[in-house]
Amino acid sequence: MPPTSSEPGFRDRIAASFARQAMMSTLGARLLLVEDGIVEIELPFRPELAQQHGFLHAGAIASVLDSACGYAAYTRMPVDTTVLSIEFKLNLLAPAVGERLIARARVIRAGRTITVTQADGFMRTAEVERHVATLIGTMMCVRDSGLAG
Amino acid sequence: MPPTSSEPGFRDRIAASFARQAMMSTLGARLLLVEDGIVEIELPFRPELAQQHGFLHAGAIASVLDSACGYAAYTRMPVDTTVLSIEFKLNLLAPAVGERLIARARVIRAGRTITVTQADGFMRTAEVERHVATLIGTMMCVRDSGLAG
Amino acid sequence: MPPTSSEPGFRDRIAASFARQAMMSTLGARLLLVEDGIVEIELPFRPELAQQHGFLHAGAIASVLDSACGYAAYTRMPVDTTVLSIEFKLNLLAPAVGERLIARARVIRAGRTITVTQADGFMRTAEVERHVATLIGTMMCVRDSGLAG
Amino acid sequence: MPPTSSEPGFRDRIAASFARQAMMSTLGARLLLVEDGIVEIELPFRPELAQQHGFLHAGAIASVLDSACGYAAYTRMPVDTTVLSIEFKLNLLAPAVGERLIARARVIRAGRTITVTQADGFMRTAEVERHVATLIGTMMCVRDSGLAG
Repeated sequence: MPPTSSEPGFRDRIAASFARQAMMSTLGARLLLVEDGIVEIELPFRPELAQQHGFLHAGAIASVLDSACGYAAYTRMPVDTTVLSIEFKLNLLAPAVGERLIARARVIRAGRTITVTQADGFMRTAEVERHVATLIGTMMCVRDSGLAG
Repeated sequence: MPPTSSEPGFRDRIAASFARQAMMSTLGARLLLVEDGIVEIELPFRPELAQQHGFLHAGAIASVLDSACGYAAYTRMPVDTTVLSIEFKLNLLAPAVGERLIARARVIRAGRTITVTQADGFMRTAEVERHVATLIGTMMCVRDSGLAG
Repeated sequence: MPPTSSEPGFRDRIAASFARQAMMSTLGARLLLVEDGIVEIELPFRPELAQQHGFLHAGAIASVLDSACGYAAYTRMPVDTTVLSIEFKLNLLAPAVGERLIARARVIRAGRTITVTQADGFMRTAEVERHVATLIGTMMCVRDSGLAG
Repeated sequence: MPPTSSEPGFRDRIAASFARQAMMSTLGARLLLVEDGIVEIELPFRPELAQQHGFLHAGAIASVLDSACGYAAYTRMPVDTTVLSIEFKLNLLAPAVGERLIARARVIRAGRTITVTQADGFMRTAEVERHVATLIGTMMCVRDSGLAG
């Protein structure tokens, strides 16, 4: 049976796992929101994360959208499991120019083993928000792996 | 007419563009090889680039494989153009454990506007090399953009 | 400048192109709806389109969702151009069991050359509709190709 | 433990499953080759399978490459299991013009539950063979499903 809602304590479980994702703090990303099937992450732009034209690097966008998708899936997974990305596809819709990236991920379909997720990335300034990327990712629920979170 | 070989000076052009990709030096990546239609990039593992289980984060892998694909495509593009990633798909084949990631990218098909590329990612230790990821990316040649490299 | 709306006559243009897609009549697909940036196609299930377990074959789903995406993109392209699929990714969310597949495609972002689209596939019976697939596709506007529609 | 080779009888098992894929006979596809981790399928071009410009429809290409990938994965799966496509991505490299499509699929990495595969599609005439498409697909091994093959 696919899970239909999150188990109690999922917010703490995800906050703890996010805190262990050293890549997120290296980039400077911050967990904004965790709800049942929904996660948002914010990444302030810094020149250290740019590609050759000064836009946010596609790899930084992928990092944040993939983590958001993984945790959105994880809200629906049982307590004693681990989430792993199997694959994702990122479409870049517009140059990633702005002050911060907001990644909004949601579960499209949760299954016992496989959960499909989608995240949209928006670059925001004080005035505007622009849709710059969309990612579809397949996440796997791993049991008895000996891995934590 | 699709380009069939690289223009003179492509190695210098790519090395200069790579040097402007601040994300690459933030991660600690290094350009290993640039040939006609082929680029290799190396990323030493550091705990700062890990996900929650201590493996190299999928976003770090995506960053390096995407850059390698972009530059492999760029070897076939005219001098006064710019390369942009339109989209890519990353499959994660095994936990990214090891001392360094080697990304090997090649052109699958070069067109006037669109070039399709593939990169494989290998985690290496002194003794072994393990295939951990594969990425297919679509790269676009942009003319008259006002952007450099 | 990316197009912001459809040119007059786009419905007739798309109906004519759809009628030339022999694959659509071979499968038994029918154009349901054409609006600015939106296309719907219907495919009644037949045992001739099944995979080994009797579900609708992923390739039949891909055919219809890809065509729907191509035509959704084409609503935003100039009159004297042609649309081609560059790539797409299909996620299969549930076994495709039911009486008919409804594909609903929309433009995510329209550009001068590249338009990104997404289609969802639903299997419908008299009583229920089930989300069975989602496809993200990159479409290209081709000028001066010598091709019609 | 990921499987490292095929179980005896895998050729018959795959031929029987292919024969039940009605979509393959509807298209006119034929199983050419089944080896450990490798499958080839052939599809003669017919005008009934064309898109609006007379090229082989991307959906026909996807159908054949997806089936080839599924069966390549299935060569490595245990006898009492079923294979399902979770997702695939198709890149179209050149117009699919020619007398027949040859799909060549291989396993990139076989796991207990998830197997990653890649297929290349070539359009062939008496004289030439042209690489027109590449597909990466994620296949799932399903146990105890009540489904045959």
